[in-house]
Amino acid sequence: MNQIKIFTPASVANVSCGFDVLGFCLDTIGDFMIVSKTDTPGVQIGSVTGEKVPKDPLKNVASVAVLSLLETHPSKCGFKIDIDKQIKPGSGIGSSAASAAGAVFAVNELLGKPFTRNELIKFALAGESLASGAYHADNLAPVLLGGFTLVRSNKTLDIIKLPIPPELFATVIHPKIELKTIHSRAILKDTIPLNKAIEQWGNLGAFISALYTNDYELLSRSMEDKVIEPYRSILIPKFKEIKSAALSSGALGSGISGSGPSIYALSKGKEIAKKVGFSMELELKKLDIEFDLHISKINHEGIKIISHS
Amino acid sequence: MNQIKIFTPASVANVSCGFDVLGFCLDTIGDFMIVSKTDTPGVQIGSVTGEKVPKDPLKNVASVAVLSLLETHPSKCGFKIDIDKQIKPGSGIGSSAASAAGAVFAVNELLGKPFTRNELIKFALAGESLASGAYHADNLAPVLLGGFTLVRSNKTLDIIKLPIPPELFATVIHPKIELKTIHSRAILKDTIPLNKAIEQWGNLGAFISALYTNDYELLSRSMEDKVIEPYRSILIPKFKEIKSAALSSGALGSGISGSGPSIYALSKGKEIAKKVGFSMELELKKLDIEFDLHISKINHEGIKIISHS
Repeated sequence: MNQIKIFTPASVANVSCGFDVLGFCLDTIGDFMIVSKTDTPGVQIGSVTGEKVPKDPLKNVASVAVLSLLETHPSKCGFKIDIDKQIKPGSGIGSSAASAAGAVFAVNELLGKPFTRNELIKFALAGESLASGAYHADNLAPVLLGGFTLVRSNKTLDIIKLPIPPELFATVIHPKIELKTIHSRAILKDTIPLNKAIEQWGNLGAFISALYTNDYELLSRSMEDKVIEPYRSILIPKFKEIKSAALSSGALGSGISGSGPSIYALSKGKEIAKKVGFSMELELKKLDIEFDLHISKINHEGIKIISHS
Repeated sequence: MNQIKIFTPASVANVSCGFDVLGFCLDTIGDFMIVSKTDTPGVQIGSVTGEKVPKDPLKNVASVAVLSLLETHPSKCGFKIDIDKQIKPGSGIGSSAASAAGAVFAVNELLGKPFTRNELIKFALAGESLASGAYHADNLAPVLLGGFTLVRSNKTLDIIKLPIPPELFATVIHPKIELKTIHSRAILKDTIPLNKAIEQWGNLGAFISALYTNDYELLSRSMEDKVIEPYRSILIPKFKEIKSAALSSGALGSGISGSGPSIYALSKGKEIAKKVGFSMELELKKLDIEFDLHISKINHEGIKIISHS
């Protein structure tokens, strides 16, 4: 194999009660990448279409991730990465994670799969941390493994793939305002009340149980976040109204996607997910803020190979 | 039915990463209770054998729990409760929960089962809170429902019964020192570091996933508690040594049972659970502290009916 074309999807992290540990993979929004072997060793960024990303291989999350992989697994050939960037950087749906995970996935395929998808997470992290300033696998894990993932330990990268209730659909709305991950982190407190923490882990436990038992009502009841959302939502215009609109339209739950500004909702069935999207839109239209809207089933496989030669 | 004899088991709450939310039910230690209908309305405590408990119906957790049930469901007859108290009060394995849950369970049977086991939890709480000063269902839930239980919300009593990996055995050692729940609560801080909270809910999520997938290794990795154990363990002599001994003997994990002083361990298989118990014993013998030791499979049904007439 000399060239591979892939679809590397967007993802939602910090899923309500699962701050820093729980994420899931989207299916209808993502980047396309063509990675080709080259005769000269090293990694270069070829063409970039769609959104803008750096062309310097030491500043681009995709190439930095690949360089990290090549440190562990040296190769005589080099790699050129052409990127069709569809996920807007800073939108809160794992733009850098898609780049980093996609690049190491593609290179791993071209090298004859020396690593499992799970093993690729640590290389992708090297790229991801360049963009976010933090060292978190909660977007990378769902992109590489698909479905819902739980990061038990970010230190040891102990990551669990969770089951997906079959009728679950996501709605994600991206208000086009700028919000840096680093600012969303800065607004958080270093300590939290013990009683709120207990509620949070009770909810996360219940959320995970609901994924195994397809209990949509329990899933809905457990989608609470009293720890992070009260702070971060301040940075997102009309957050309360958009969330309320989603819930009134039948969403199981709704919250901040990643560190925002995107807002996600989960619904039972595609029709409700669409209706939820429509009512979220209405709120943003009142403010005259531009937005993107995505309706997606949960992507159970993660990155997909489109073609290779 | 005029009389019923039941076995109402001990339980382990605050299971490592699941402080205030996760508990499980034991099988080899518990109280026996005979509850009989009487002609005079009201509730009385009849004979008490084994450990000492108050005979005043307004001070006994069993009768207080029953009085709470009778407020919602009045009865023309009264009830007499004979208690063979085998679980030592203050041992950390749900002594008051067994009394409260057992009494409401038995009375509910005598009344023709107007309530489900789940509905009985709220009445039992009235009794339990008398003893512990706190309003927590994490011991009551496993006693009434059996197996592992998760209290998603203590406010709404949203409680989930979880599956049990078939080879799981518990070892519980009770060092006979006095430790009041109220003191164990007082030693805790009102706030906790956010990064420790994240580790805790990552571990709880993984623990619950492991229960559904019978993944004993994941269960073992997730049995960490960096939030509560570091504080409460100070109150338990030789805690570190006993826990280390359990882990060295092959336990999957070990921690404080309830608010202590009992220490529990979980193991894969009865033989390992016995070996773990032996090595925990050795540590306490060095200190010349008396103890009780219990080896038990996880009791999947909770309270059991022994006979009725």
